[in-house]
Amino acid sequence: MVGCPVGCLVIGGADTFTCVTAVAVIGAAGRMGKTTCDAVEAAADLTLSARVGSGDDLVAGLKGADVAVVMTSPDGVDDIVVTCVEQGVHAVVGTTGWTEDGLARVRAALAKAPGVGVLLAPNFALGAVLLMRFAAEAARYFESVEVVELHHPNKADAPSGTARHTAAQIAASRREAGLPASPDATTAVLDGARGADVDGVRVHSVRLQGLVAHEEVLLGGPGEQLTIRHDSFDRVSFMPGVLLAVRQVSGRPGLVRGLENYL
Amino acid sequence: MVGCPVGCLVIGGADTFTCVTAVAVIGAAGRMGKTTCDAVEAAADLTLSARVGSGDDLVAGLKGADVAVVMTSPDGVDDIVVTCVEQGVHAVVGTTGWTEDGLARVRAALAKAPGVGVLLAPNFALGAVLLMRFAAEAARYFESVEVVELHHPNKADAPSGTARHTAAQIAASRREAGLPASPDATTAVLDGARGADVDGVRVHSVRLQGLVAHEEVLLGGPGEQLTIRHDSFDRVSFMPGVLLAVRQVSGRPGLVRGLENYL
Amino acid sequence: MVGCPVGCLVIGGADTFTCVTAVAVIGAAGRMGKTTCDAVEAAADLTLSARVGSGDDLVAGLKGADVAVVMTSPDGVDDIVVTCVEQGVHAVVGTTGWTEDGLARVRAALAKAPGVGVLLAPNFALGAVLLMRFAAEAARYFESVEVVELHHPNKADAPSGTARHTAAQIAASRREAGLPASPDATTAVLDGARGADVDGVRVHSVRLQGLVAHEEVLLGGPGEQLTIRHDSFDRVSFMPGVLLAVRQVSGRPGLVRGLENYL
Amino acid sequence: MVGCPVGCLVIGGADTFTCVTAVAVIGAAGRMGKTTCDAVEAAADLTLSARVGSGDDLVAGLKGADVAVVMTSPDGVDDIVVTCVEQGVHAVVGTTGWTEDGLARVRAALAKAPGVGVLLAPNFALGAVLLMRFAAEAARYFESVEVVELHHPNKADAPSGTARHTAAQIAASRREAGLPASPDATTAVLDGARGADVDGVRVHSVRLQGLVAHEEVLLGGPGEQLTIRHDSFDRVSFMPGVLLAVRQVSGRPGLVRGLENYL
Repeated sequence: MVGCPVGCLVIGGADTFTCVTAVAVIGAAGRMGKTTCDAVEAAADLTLSARVGSGDDLVAGLKGADVAVVMTSPDGVDDIVVTCVEQGVHAVVGTTGWTEDGLARVRAALAKAPGVGVLLAPNFALGAVLLMRFAAEAARYFESVEVVELHHPNKADAPSGTARHTAAQIAASRREAGLPASPDATTAVLDGARGADVDGVRVHSVRLQGLVAHEEVLLGGPGEQLTIRHDSFDRVSFMPGVLLAVRQVSGRPGLVRGLENYL
Repeated sequence: MVGCPVGCLVIGGADTFTCVTAVAVIGAAGRMGKTTCDAVEAAADLTLSARVGSGDDLVAGLKGADVAVVMTSPDGVDDIVVTCVEQGVHAVVGTTGWTEDGLARVRAALAKAPGVGVLLAPNFALGAVLLMRFAAEAARYFESVEVVELHHPNKADAPSGTARHTAAQIAASRREAGLPASPDATTAVLDGARGADVDGVRVHSVRLQGLVAHEEVLLGGPGEQLTIRHDSFDRVSFMPGVLLAVRQVSGRPGLVRGLENYL
Repeated sequence: MVGCPVGCLVIGGADTFTCVTAVAVIGAAGRMGKTTCDAVEAAADLTLSARVGSGDDLVAGLKGADVAVVMTSPDGVDDIVVTCVEQGVHAVVGTTGWTEDGLARVRAALAKAPGVGVLLAPNFALGAVLLMRFAAEAARYFESVEVVELHHPNKADAPSGTARHTAAQIAASRREAGLPASPDATTAVLDGARGADVDGVRVHSVRLQGLVAHEEVLLGGPGEQLTIRHDSFDRVSFMPGVLLAVRQVSGRPGLVRGLENYL
Repeated sequence: MVGCPVGCLVIGGADTFTCVTAVAVIGAAGRMGKTTCDAVEAAADLTLSARVGSGDDLVAGLKGADVAVVMTSPDGVDDIVVTCVEQGVHAVVGTTGWTEDGLARVRAALAKAPGVGVLLAPNFALGAVLLMRFAAEAARYFESVEVVELHHPNKADAPSGTARHTAAQIAASRREAGLPASPDATTAVLDGARGADVDGVRVHSVRLQGLVAHEEVLLGGPGEQLTIRHDSFDRVSFMPGVLLAVRQVSGRPGLVRGLENYL
């Protein structure tokens, strides 16, 4: 019987073995955290090593974990991810609302921990990832583009991390194609009407009871419009992407932003 | 042969006559103005008495007119409407972007001209008027409501006059029903992301090449959403409402806001 | 202490009493049935007297019930409602897919049971009921109207009962307004492309994994479109309407179709 | 002065020359035909050699033309394209509603005319072409997919050629990915409700006054939906694609279906 090459738990006997990845869920008491715990427990190749809540000792919770899935609120998430990296635990992070300063701190921690991987994914739904890719591709062919994202009213940040990420990718694609800014003759504006400016792309955030998580990219040219919309009706839509990330993060050292880089 | 009781032109002979309303179009060189001129010329009971452009003498243009249709840009529209009232010419006004000060000036002029009617209608499309009525009615049954309006990128004001009017009606309906503000837990917001605040209702303005004029009211409650959307694809959609207003304005003295009051 | 005038259970003591309506849920093992049981148990003025599944004795299950909520599959629902009526139990019915024959049988049973009420409501969501009312009102102002309904792929009937009901109300409203059929120059059609014909209104049924229950009414005139859409994301959206119906059905003898008649 | 290598008109003088492609528009009296004539006349490198209407002699109209743009009604379009090929004139065809028999006749004609190119494009709008590509790519990741197309009520065929083409590409993509049919538990269906079946993909055709040409692809998986929608508000949206095709068709011998093959 051979040992697992990366040192994880061995199950099964004789000459065969199956690596089981141990997963700690940080923010386990939240709704996304609970759904993640359920999905990890249901996966044969994963084991749930810890459920860590906001009052728990993080370092103790990371003990024995190969991968941490971080599903906390934005506040203090950089401290959490830095601690994961320092403990040598790969991190799959769904929390959004990152600041430049927070990103710099994670990068600094990773520089001292070669081999550790961190994935910041504002959205794990496959449809959302496809939306971003299609939006970036289409953006080079249309004069105008704006983003509308719609969420339940309990969301803390606006725009959503997904929408900021989408807008940034659209902006990069337009720059690459040499496109100027979307035309806009507005002269008399009521404060906030034209949305937030993310890298030159207008982003509008709707908050509505009954909704879950929805994003729409609107592209316009002479006489035509192309609309790409993603609706997450239920947190289960994120789980295939979360598990895919948990399985791949150890092979992707350093900081990666966006699940599309894993596809 | 009898004369027309309101003193307008008489056509036909003998004992029958048809009143013909003389219409001056102000802003006749613009796209809405041109479409209005075409519609007036095509109507058997209306005659186009003048096409007035931005460089023309307004008082001269109003000579002989029963009704002025004002389709100018927002700048200086209050002067134009005050002049119409002073000349005893009823005004049907599609121009939006009115200030409180401008409205006060029109009201003051009307106070000295009993019998003269002014209609300020941010939107003459029947579908848009129905949208406003339905939105105001539904608003009392849902916790959350926001407005998204989408227009071509040459539009000067944001939000559109229609959207402001819609939001104001929604707000009044919610106040009447005793509803609190729509829930919103946003704490980390990028400037402008949550739209403009019109009487407590969030309004988002999208500007996109290829679009004409579109408005969407989103209403949300536990587990459900109701969406009412109006699309104006072409200026012809406004003409039935404009002509209806031209025919009724002389019977509606004073200031009226919104075509729905004529239905 | 006085007794309840309609003979139901008495709780509380002394001179005050509260009537408690006893509710039997038929189809209690289904998803709508379970959600209904939860909602009944959570309501202070209702008590759940029986959960009746497909293999259970219906007459036994109705014993002691004031009202039956029927949330079964279409097959055999007319037998179930006839039995309720024969047992003197009011029925609130969410099951759709009714045939003319089934309706006739229920009417015949009600004729012999004066005082018993039956409500057939294809949809209990308030937003859906508003959609139907708005659609019927708007339908008289537009040349064209079609209905698109979208549901999860486990639904048995197409179109949905809600969509049929909506189309029938639209058709009645257009007839009343003297409108001709919606224009349609189609000459080369692939079988089924133009949807089902419900009283002259075209209805299209989409079945898609991930969806719950959604309905869209599209109205079109020269240069404009009005769209009214309702999304049910979760069965909880139906519960306020179900409970409202349970509380009112005993006061509405005979057959009533559509929750809008209770508003 | 050198001649044009492909023998077309020479304009300019001395040692420079510009090839001008001569274009005959077939169906020139229709709305798409007229818009095409305008676009050809406005292009410096194209010249309009003939406007051919339904009563005109086709062979005479093709005289001197390098490329024919065919924008007729479906009836008899195969005869027209076969004649173009026999006359050695490349054809860019926007007419939809092709039968297998018609396609076979065009292929047979092309077999005898090596070097002649025919492009059958159900849609020339860039956004529509991107929609088709994105839909085919996304289709491999979702359990369910359906197509809804919406047009003005004067359209003769249902579904539209664009929608059939989109559905066929989606079906091919799903087959390649080994996906089974979209789930559908419908047992009680009103004729036509579930749309037309195009290679196993359901397609719904809405016809509404006020609309131009719109297409929506709906993709669904557990808890999520991806929607890709294209709106053509005006025939001008087709012209960049028509001109691109006119410029490339001589370099693409044989039968090509879909503008995406030219991008």
